[in-house]
Amino acid sequence: MTGSEHSELTHLDASGKAHMVDVLDKDVTRRRAIAKCRIEMDATTAAAIGNGKLIKGDVLAVARVAGIQAAKRTSELIPLCHPLMIGAVAVDFELEETYVTVISEIETRDRTGVEMEALTACSVAALTIYDMCKSVDKNMVISELALWEKTGGKSGPYSRD
Amino acid sequence: MTGSEHSELTHLDASGKAHMVDVLDKDVTRRRAIAKCRIEMDATTAAAIGNGKLIKGDVLAVARVAGIQAAKRTSELIPLCHPLMIGAVAVDFELEETYVTVISEIETRDRTGVEMEALTACSVAALTIYDMCKSVDKNMVISELALWEKTGGKSGPYSRD
Amino acid sequence: MTGSEHSELTHLDASGKAHMVDVLDKDVTRRRAIAKCRIEMDATTAAAIGNGKLIKGDVLAVARVAGIQAAKRTSELIPLCHPLMIGAVAVDFELEETYVTVISEIETRDRTGVEMEALTACSVAALTIYDMCKSVDKNMVISELALWEKTGGKSGPYSRD
Amino acid sequence: MTGSEHSELTHLDASGKAHMVDVLDKDVTRRRAIAKCRIEMDATTAAAIGNGKLIKGDVLAVARVAGIQAAKRTSELIPLCHPLMIGAVAVDFELEETYVTVISEIETRDRTGVEMEALTACSVAALTIYDMCKSVDKNMVISELALWEKTGGKSGPYSRD
Amino acid sequence: MTGSEHSELTHLDASGKAHMVDVLDKDVTRRRAIAKCRIEMDATTAAAIGNGKLIKGDVLAVARVAGIQAAKRTSELIPLCHPLMIGAVAVDFELEETYVTVISEIETRDRTGVEMEALTACSVAALTIYDMCKSVDKNMVISELALWEKTGGKSGPYSRD
Amino acid sequence: MTGSEHSELTHLDASGKAHMVDVLDKDVTRRRAIAKCRIEMDATTAAAIGNGKLIKGDVLAVARVAGIQAAKRTSELIPLCHPLMIGAVAVDFELEETYVTVISEIETRDRTGVEMEALTACSVAALTIYDMCKSVDKNMVISELALWEKTGGKSGPYSRD
Repeated sequence: MTGSEHSELTHLDASGKAHMVDVLDKDVTRRRAIAKCRIEMDATTAAAIGNGKLIKGDVLAVARVAGIQAAKRTSELIPLCHPLMIGAVAVDFELEETYVTVISEIETRDRTGVEMEALTACSVAALTIYDMCKSVDKNMVISELALWEKTGGKSGPYSRD
Repeated sequence: MTGSEHSELTHLDASGKAHMVDVLDKDVTRRRAIAKCRIEMDATTAAAIGNGKLIKGDVLAVARVAGIQAAKRTSELIPLCHPLMIGAVAVDFELEETYVTVISEIETRDRTGVEMEALTACSVAALTIYDMCKSVDKNMVISELALWEKTGGKSGPYSRD
Repeated sequence: MTGSEHSELTHLDASGKAHMVDVLDKDVTRRRAIAKCRIEMDATTAAAIGNGKLIKGDVLAVARVAGIQAAKRTSELIPLCHPLMIGAVAVDFELEETYVTVISEIETRDRTGVEMEALTACSVAALTIYDMCKSVDKNMVISELALWEKTGGKSGPYSRD
Repeated sequence: MTGSEHSELTHLDASGKAHMVDVLDKDVTRRRAIAKCRIEMDATTAAAIGNGKLIKGDVLAVARVAGIQAAKRTSELIPLCHPLMIGAVAVDFELEETYVTVISEIETRDRTGVEMEALTACSVAALTIYDMCKSVDKNMVISELALWEKTGGKSGPYSRD
Repeated sequence: MTGSEHSELTHLDASGKAHMVDVLDKDVTRRRAIAKCRIEMDATTAAAIGNGKLIKGDVLAVARVAGIQAAKRTSELIPLCHPLMIGAVAVDFELEETYVTVISEIETRDRTGVEMEALTACSVAALTIYDMCKSVDKNMVISELALWEKTGGKSGPYSRD
Repeated sequence: MTGSEHSELTHLDASGKAHMVDVLDKDVTRRRAIAKCRIEMDATTAAAIGNGKLIKGDVLAVARVAGIQAAKRTSELIPLCHPLMIGAVAVDFELEETYVTVISEIETRDRTGVEMEALTACSVAALTIYDMCKSVDKNMVISELALWEKTGGKSGPYSRD
């Protein structure tokens, strides 16, 4: 095991210590990321949120706001994440019989990508749904949180299979 | 569909609008919550973090700090979550061949439980691992985020099967 | 003009310097505050938000979340305000032909009152409405922000005429 | 009532859901906003703050700092507000016999205007005055919070009558 | 070198990993801490701040507010620090010919002491003075930041020699 | 004493009041700052952290994260400090027999320098070490916090003797 193994992980220096990577020589380009997750729940819990297109109360509206705000605070939460100025955020939901899918899309013009912002928005939106439904269902599970698409930046576009 | 269906969700009032539930008549008791999630990754990504007990660099130490700090900020992230004073936090990891398990345990003496704090700590710790490893692996998936155990409070102990 | 005039303002010491007042000998009691303000706007702007009980989109739901969250952050915004743990928050709206009334109600069990939290919640909820409607109306005015009611605490109940 | 009515409010999508508007194709230009409000109070309260040009203690100095800091945190408070880097802030006061006028002026070079920052600075500065004077006067009213001037940006200059 | 050496540092577990110490069985008592530091500067810099008791502008008033606010945010800045509700804060200054002494005093009723809050208040107040004077003096040095006094809590009173 | 004396301190206007300086006409250039401080402690305290290159537990890893995160929040802590987007941060330590030296290096491309960010990172990293070691040593002193080097910007490079 040598120091060079660490160099794979750009957030660690040669001796394995954390630092915030220098991005100042990267180009400012338009960058976009889409992330998704789902929160699995009892059918009766999903029914308390709504029924297909018919949403009963504010659960998803509150979760949407929470996700948008979390996207703006990503660099406060993730220690080595660069601060950046988000230029557009959308958080949306698909309400199914036993789960809700959370989808976030973020765009910026900056030197680093917004995948952490997209993942954080999904994660906090899902946690907010958990919080608002936990009085009737403590067994909910948040799963499948993943980067779905990413464009802009030197490494080229990424798209999940 | 009637207003009473909303009353199941204590975070909504009779007309479906969000509010922060009144907990002032609940007892101050010692409360504890344990949450877990896992972050799935390539075997080479897991190997870049470490090898069983032998941890190579600061990935998990940074994720631990991020999880502990996120627990303290839960009520800022989750809109209807009550602020409370956390009295103990531990975030730990089990590094396996193709995933890392994240476990958080939180305790307080307060009028509400700490399940959202435990879930938030796990979630942000896992996102921090994602951030630090994403230069080598964009396919990581955060999954199985769930409440594992909960004690204290009127509703009695909860334990995941 | 003497130093004693400053002592009227408990947030200043005898020489006029700011400090956070010592509240540690006050009793922990249940305390409540209600504040109100209104945001005046064109009739067409009000109509874009909704029509009496029929609300069209998320403007008020977003403003409600913003107000609730701001209540929790009051002591970060107002320099000499004591931190406290809010136990219940409700933010509500009355949509009229040319204005929206914002009403907040906050409760806690603590050594200081929650009037600043109630005023801050109203203020940020109204600013959020301004933000969401400003693309159609820049002439909106936020006015009449005042404490409406206050109970708990040594100084006795307060009620605005 | 059709979905197109929502499209007036750019912060809502066609189905009335909140999102953070995409500003990435707007030009980076120098933008400025001036906002004002007033806080009405008893003559004796105003006298406790100062007497015309003669300020007795730190009330206005503290309120000025609070306003400047709030301007920097606007996008944390107002959910759909874009983060931006403020380049200059001034908060000033005019102390009259029965009220204080609060004036804020903010400048930036960015893709969006700073009217929310100017309004938030005024609002939090006024709330801080309320907090510091409330031990002698609970009847204070914050009113007339409005955008006064705005330059830069495609929609052209705005000036309140 | 054994694991037991780590146990001296209560913030590390037996294997050297960080955690937030469990304080829930400690008594809630009145606790106080006083910290001090000094910021050394050119005589002309000190003279730009004021002259003995005669303070010219807002440098110290702004630094005082910054210190008070930082005390309230200590647990956000110091990762393993417990959140607590501060009940009283004073930050004061002594302006000398070539330095300013910063003194902070914090009180609470809680299960943990407030020494970190007192040290953080001093530190941020001194940094604020640095910021406001750096246009005329980049050689300033902040030094001698130390806990001066501490009362309340099981370990008994502490007083610096 | 005239108003012109205040004008030396660019953060004060002619009448001595604080404002955030207008930097919008400055050039966007690559800017760098290095700061250092030291935290003095008993030899046994230093030995509990580690022994030269051999670090025993997470004290320095946690302090590093705290310093990096504090750099990102500088403009929230220092009232008149401009917000800016940090592009690279490193915080490092030298463990000596009776003290630890903290070194921070920050880089950005912006209109203002990053000296406050570098000083804040050092300061919070040192406070974090204090926090983690205070159970065995309350006499630690944080000292010699100073700007070490600064490049970029109109005033030319600065280097401490």
